[in-house]
Amino acid sequence: MHRLLILSKHAAAYRALIDAARLPDLEIAGASDDRVEIVFGEPSLIRPELPRLTAVRWVQSTWAGVEPLLDASLRRDYTLTNARGVFGPLMTEYVFGYMLAHERRMFEKLASQQSGRWDPSPPGTLRGKTIGLIGVGTIGAALAKTAKHFGMHVKGYTRASATCADVDAYFHGDDRLAFAVDLDYLVSIAPDTSRTRRLVDAALLAALPARAVFVNPGRGAIVDEQALAAALQANRLAGAVLDVFEQEPLPPDHVFWRTPNVVITSHTAALSVPSDIAPLFVENYRRFAAGQPLRFLVNFEDEY
Amino acid sequence: MHRLLILSKHAAAYRALIDAARLPDLEIAGASDDRVEIVFGEPSLIRPELPRLTAVRWVQSTWAGVEPLLDASLRRDYTLTNARGVFGPLMTEYVFGYMLAHERRMFEKLASQQSGRWDPSPPGTLRGKTIGLIGVGTIGAALAKTAKHFGMHVKGYTRASATCADVDAYFHGDDRLAFAVDLDYLVSIAPDTSRTRRLVDAALLAALPARAVFVNPGRGAIVDEQALAAALQANRLAGAVLDVFEQEPLPPDHVFWRTPNVVITSHTAALSVPSDIAPLFVENYRRFAAGQPLRFLVNFEDEY
Repeated sequence: MHRLLILSKHAAAYRALIDAARLPDLEIAGASDDRVEIVFGEPSLIRPELPRLTAVRWVQSTWAGVEPLLDASLRRDYTLTNARGVFGPLMTEYVFGYMLAHERRMFEKLASQQSGRWDPSPPGTLRGKTIGLIGVGTIGAALAKTAKHFGMHVKGYTRASATCADVDAYFHGDDRLAFAVDLDYLVSIAPDTSRTRRLVDAALLAALPARAVFVNPGRGAIVDEQALAAALQANRLAGAVLDVFEQEPLPPDHVFWRTPNVVITSHTAALSVPSDIAPLFVENYRRFAAGQPLRFLVNFEDEY
Repeated sequence: MHRLLILSKHAAAYRALIDAARLPDLEIAGASDDRVEIVFGEPSLIRPELPRLTAVRWVQSTWAGVEPLLDASLRRDYTLTNARGVFGPLMTEYVFGYMLAHERRMFEKLASQQSGRWDPSPPGTLRGKTIGLIGVGTIGAALAKTAKHFGMHVKGYTRASATCADVDAYFHGDDRLAFAVDLDYLVSIAPDTSRTRRLVDAALLAALPARAVFVNPGRGAIVDEQALAAALQANRLAGAVLDVFEQEPLPPDHVFWRTPNVVITSHTAALSVPSDIAPLFVENYRRFAAGQPLRFLVNFEDEY
């Protein structure tokens, strides 16, 4: 019998979905049970419990990002898996929704309407524009495919991979300024690792054309927030659509609340929905119980 | 030598593009030349000139809609062609941009941001939703293809055609309430004809679910505007995104300016851009000069 501890703000929903799957040899354990072998939940809730869970062999994260569990002070004597493959469609709706809002001048047209003004000013189009993706995993591939659907050029900046056929040109390592130089949209869906931290810094922002918009539904630590605010205030960048921040909720005195052309979406770009995430646990549990390799393995050294 | 009269607010741009194409046996005529054989331009500008253009054999519209030239009092002793096949991408960006804005609650989140409030309320998704298209020509087919890309169900209401593979279910004639009954989005891209006028009336609006949003980048005459305003005011409909109206510009005292959940986009959904439209004229002129059948023929009886 394998003992599972669920540590999630959606624990009741996950419990119901797991019960419904009738998994063999599985027992859902109480929070104080020290024989827990498996933990399923949000990394932020798991982190404080990890030291006392001495019997744990496998942790399945409900999130894609597992930063809370990567702290060097924490044990790594278990298998860590994250949520993958389910966020592509939601991320695509977020990124293309806000890019289209920019092209169609939706917020300006809303202001015209609110002042009772017929506003025939012409909108733009995504067609022929260039999108640059920082990170081309499953989410980046979904974005690249949709970009092609809308007739865009696609550039990808990755650590090493260059396998997505919808990416027209790949850039790596020191090539980040060549990657940035002609972008209409810069979109970051990279994980937060020591190699991506502050990748979008003053130099990269300066390399972007002034018409460019930065869209960040990935991780806040990838961008130098003060440099981004300065670029926007000086009109050296057309806009920023930000879902994630160094500190969340964004503090009331943060410069972004009063920076022009910033859109703040409060970390809602691709929420982990129990009905999407529970099947990942169910599939991995069947592998775990059968002694097979798990899917969605996190490499502690790679940090994702 | 064929004499061409250009009647367009973009006449200079069209003249430059036509000159650049170096078309054989073509001379651009002045407005008073009564030997004009070909007219190229906006139907609203052509209409008042039509009676005196006694030598005209072919009129190429820069618009898709040719209603001004269909008035029964006007001559029909010439070939009328319109603009087709170029508006699909722009219409797609408009319709999906505003549907995503609705799902992502963009305007509510903007209001939260403007009041300095972190707003983690969850957005919706297009995935699994149902879109109903009134009219499935080239524009409707482009919308249906994009709807499939976003994982939507697609219903089509047409006069008779049922040829687009991306439409899951077709409806015709008296089936319009069965067409409407489970839609999340109702999108009209039908031409303005005697058969489409007031197709979206109080009965059809009442058949829609209260969660539905009506998107109209087609023609204003398709909808009963008073019935639409009443449905929105009573919350029997979630929203309306309106590009076209019975009277344009929308009069300052029109009820839509103060109807809740209406978005007004001032007839900018798919503007006729000279660089898109001139090639249609160039292609058709080569056919005209060679005595071949023209493309994009309007049937005066069908009204499109």
